Amino acid sequence: MLVVRSEQGQRRVLDRIKESVRLAGGLSADGRLDEETQQRALDCLARFGQRLAQFDATRVRVVGTNTLRQARGAGQFIARAEAALGHPIEIIYGVEEARLIYAGVAEDLDAGAAQRLVVDIGGGSTELVIGRGPQAYRAESVALGAVTYTARFFASGKIDKSSWKAAVTEARLALEPLAYDYGELGWDVAIGASGSIKSIARAVGADGPGELITGDALEKLARRLYKAGSVEKLSPDGVSAERRAIFAGGLAVLVGVFESLGIEAMQVSDKALREGVISDLLGRLSAHDSRDDGVDDAARRFVIDREHGRRVADTATRLWRSGHGGDAADDDNGLAEAARVLRWAAMLHEIGLVVAHRAYHKHGEYLLDNADIRGFSQADQHLLATIVRLHRGRFRTELIDALPPVWQSRTWDIVLALRIAVILHRGRNPATRPPVTFTHGDKKLTVSIDTEWLAQRPLTRTDLEHEGERLAKAGLTLDLVETTIPEAATPVRQ
Amino acid sequence: MLVVRSEQGQRRVLDRIKESVRLAGGLSADGRLDEETQQRALDCLARFGQRLAQFDATRVRVVGTNTLRQARGAGQFIARAEAALGHPIEIIYGVEEARLIYAGVAEDLDAGAAQRLVVDIGGGSTELVIGRGPQAYRAESVALGAVTYTARFFASGKIDKSSWKAAVTEARLALEPLAYDYGELGWDVAIGASGSIKSIARAVGADGPGELITGDALEKLARRLYKAGSVEKLSPDGVSAERRAIFAGGLAVLVGVFESLGIEAMQVSDKALREGVISDLLGRLSAHDSRDDGVDDAARRFVIDREHGRRVADTATRLWRSGHGGDAADDDNGLAEAARVLRWAAMLHEIGLVVAHRAYHKHGEYLLDNADIRGFSQADQHLLATIVRLHRGRFRTELIDALPPVWQSRTWDIVLALRIAVILHRGRNPATRPPVTFTHGDKKLTVSIDTEWLAQRPLTRTDLEHEGERLAKAGLTLDLVETTIPEAATPVRQ
Repeated sequence: MLVVRSEQGQRRVLDRIKESVRLAGGLSADGRLDEETQQRALDCLARFGQRLAQFDATRVRVVGTNTLRQARGAGQFIARAEAALGHPIEIIYGVEEARLIYAGVAEDLDAGAAQRLVVDIGGGSTELVIGRGPQAYRAESVALGAVTYTARFFASGKIDKSSWKAAVTEARLALEPLAYDYGELGWDVAIGASGSIKSIARAVGADGPGELITGDALEKLARRLYKAGSVEKLSPDGVSAERRAIFAGGLAVLVGVFESLGIEAMQVSDKALREGVISDLLGRLSAHDSRDDGVDDAARRFVIDREHGRRVADTATRLWRSGHGGDAADDDNGLAEAARVLRWAAMLHEIGLVVAHRAYHKHGEYLLDNADIRGFSQADQHLLATIVRLHRGRFRTELIDALPPVWQSRTWDIVLALRIAVILHRGRNPATRPPVTFTHGDKKLTVSIDTEWLAQRPLTRTDLEHEGERLAKAGLTLDLVETTIPEAATPVRQ
Repeated sequence: MLVVRSEQGQRRVLDRIKESVRLAGGLSADGRLDEETQQRALDCLARFGQRLAQFDATRVRVVGTNTLRQARGAGQFIARAEAALGHPIEIIYGVEEARLIYAGVAEDLDAGAAQRLVVDIGGGSTELVIGRGPQAYRAESVALGAVTYTARFFASGKIDKSSWKAAVTEARLALEPLAYDYGELGWDVAIGASGSIKSIARAVGADGPGELITGDALEKLARRLYKAGSVEKLSPDGVSAERRAIFAGGLAVLVGVFESLGIEAMQVSDKALREGVISDLLGRLSAHDSRDDGVDDAARRFVIDREHGRRVADTATRLWRSGHGGDAADDDNGLAEAARVLRWAAMLHEIGLVVAHRAYHKHGEYLLDNADIRGFSQADQHLLATIVRLHRGRFRTELIDALPPVWQSRTWDIVLALRIAVILHRGRNPATRPPVTFTHGDKKLTVSIDTEWLAQRPLTRTDLEHEGERLAKAGLTLDLVETTIPEAATPVRQ
């Protein structure tokens, strides 16, 4: 846990608390987290929760990584963990984890022109990122880690040359698909982050400022280790008992990384994922939400008609705001986040067209549930996926009922605003800026449209009537009111 | 049915048989084909089957379109239909149907510079394509058709102004999402194909050479129709009793198309889907298989590393050929098609990376099952999807068992060749051209690799050992034989 105060762009660390739970070691043969590990984690989170009790929800971000991505039935554990902590936990994809690690490490360095390779060895996954300045170019997360490799190759605690070679070969094999590309991209500086790498730095006496872990030193340490026969017998300097338990696996992974990528020497950084998460959170709290960039990236990657997306987003946002009485969305009650979610979903509602026109809302759901989108957690993406799935066709309210409770009520009018906006822009005419508002109460949606505007668009009227029939099947009433509404002056932008 | 003889690039129509079964009218409320319609279709197909009995399987292509795409439980009917006909039936996606219609119509026209809009009104879907010369730029299939619109708006046979307007408005609504884009693309000539449009041409007296269906004539015909109150009472010229039953729906759709796209006049073409299918089949039989272009398109659209795809395809093809004793694949026994399928699957095996690295073989399966890929039928695509899904990870043989019988045995060694090739190219080194062959017998795969080559690649050896473990779980034995094999001289290209 990292607690930071940020004032006028200056960050000051107030608290840095670390407890090692070794979650990855708690995965049993059937892929579930064993009860003992769960309890250890919950106890830890309850302690952290005390420290966080005073914090506003929007100022806390809690992320879960590889083990929670992998564990079967993790949902139940996460619910207990959120209760113990008092805050929601976001599971992030490996690539997003890698990007955040890079952001954390980059924060510590000058914005010079050096190209960097950043490596973070976690319990069950290793992240490798190439970037320059604050920008990660290429980020990958590979399923090899200190905890899992220790358990797989050195479970008995004994280490010999053959098990050592097997572990390193396996690590190299896991890295092989990216080694060639990373070599092509190249780097000026290799930087290691994470507890595993720091403890190795201490063991090779490279933990002072400016010192480097060299390939030679690693090789010598490895030889001493498998000659000693166990980490206990090697008794590496500066490695805590807790760290010793997973030291061999971490070392095998790091040797694999060095050999696979041809690294000669590596700096060690104190910063990593937590600092990256703080950076990202501070961005969200100020002007820059990295999810906006993620949506832009995805729109480009999946060749979306971005102008159309923006027009639909503008109209949907105007509708939604009209339903919330103007500026309520600027409050800190979750509505600002809801407005962002609506905008992103609207920008991406046609993402499935890259696959096919037929059922493109379902392809959109699939892509948003599965694609790597910068800045988003798995739950964020599933929320977007659900909204995009529901933007046309049958209004399957059961998909909303399956969302996390806090989003169930918020998602209703997001979906309704998006559905109506999509209908109003069905003609794809860039000049269309529909004069329309809506209000909604219990099971009832009232859409008010300028009489004259609608009179010129009989297709839109028919389409809204069809929408009334679709919503009626979901138990909702759609009232269409014709009135006088001035054309919207300028599109709403966020 | 169209029977054509092609000699020295000249085509001569030997037979042109048309029976109207009106499949789309046989869809019951629950979306299934009613038994009576099925029987009508089967009787027709049995008659066609007699004519086709003398034909080699590779020289017949049978396609099913909208109704078979839509019908629930269509699989059972298709199996009966294939038995009656004696040939497999390929269900094609709407966009592919549209492309084939364009190809059929284009065949009849000079390759001039005119940009064309081609419209084909079918029983349950209407295809709209814009292209120039032989090339379709934009193809869409929209769910509105002569049979379905007649059933929906004029089921009783009575037609009045209000039901008429409702039908036309609905057609325009269905066309609205593409009207703007099509208008932007523009066209010099509008061409109508299909029985519906031809019968309308006769009814307005525009069926002579060089004559056009005009918007004015359509409007007058429509007014006469709803004033008469029924097609029977209107008694349009030159429209058979069979055609009269769906005339009103077809006319409403065509009026909708004219109004929506702002068409002023339309030529009528005798050619359509069948001619396009013949063209495509002749392409396959000679140098040019449109599926090669479809794979290229997909590789571009989904940003595949095409060089890597090509290397894997070359190695996989060499492996597969070695298992078939050299040139057996040039025979006309399905092996040539199997070799093509292997090549396409290899070219596209990384298609899922556009979504995410994790589980990219599953994303690849999804994309190949759902994307519009030029030249492929649904079954073709599902075959590629299955092979791509199986190119790494657990060898889920049950996915092969679910393929059509003729492909079950062929797919085994395609998948094995691809899996081994992917392993051999795991390092992504462009210079790699592995000296390797394989043979396979019952439940046993023998991979022979050059001793020296393998000795330099301990990771590949480990990976092949892992593959042996994975295959063992599927009941297969992988034997690795080290021997002397000269480096492949040149990559195999097709």
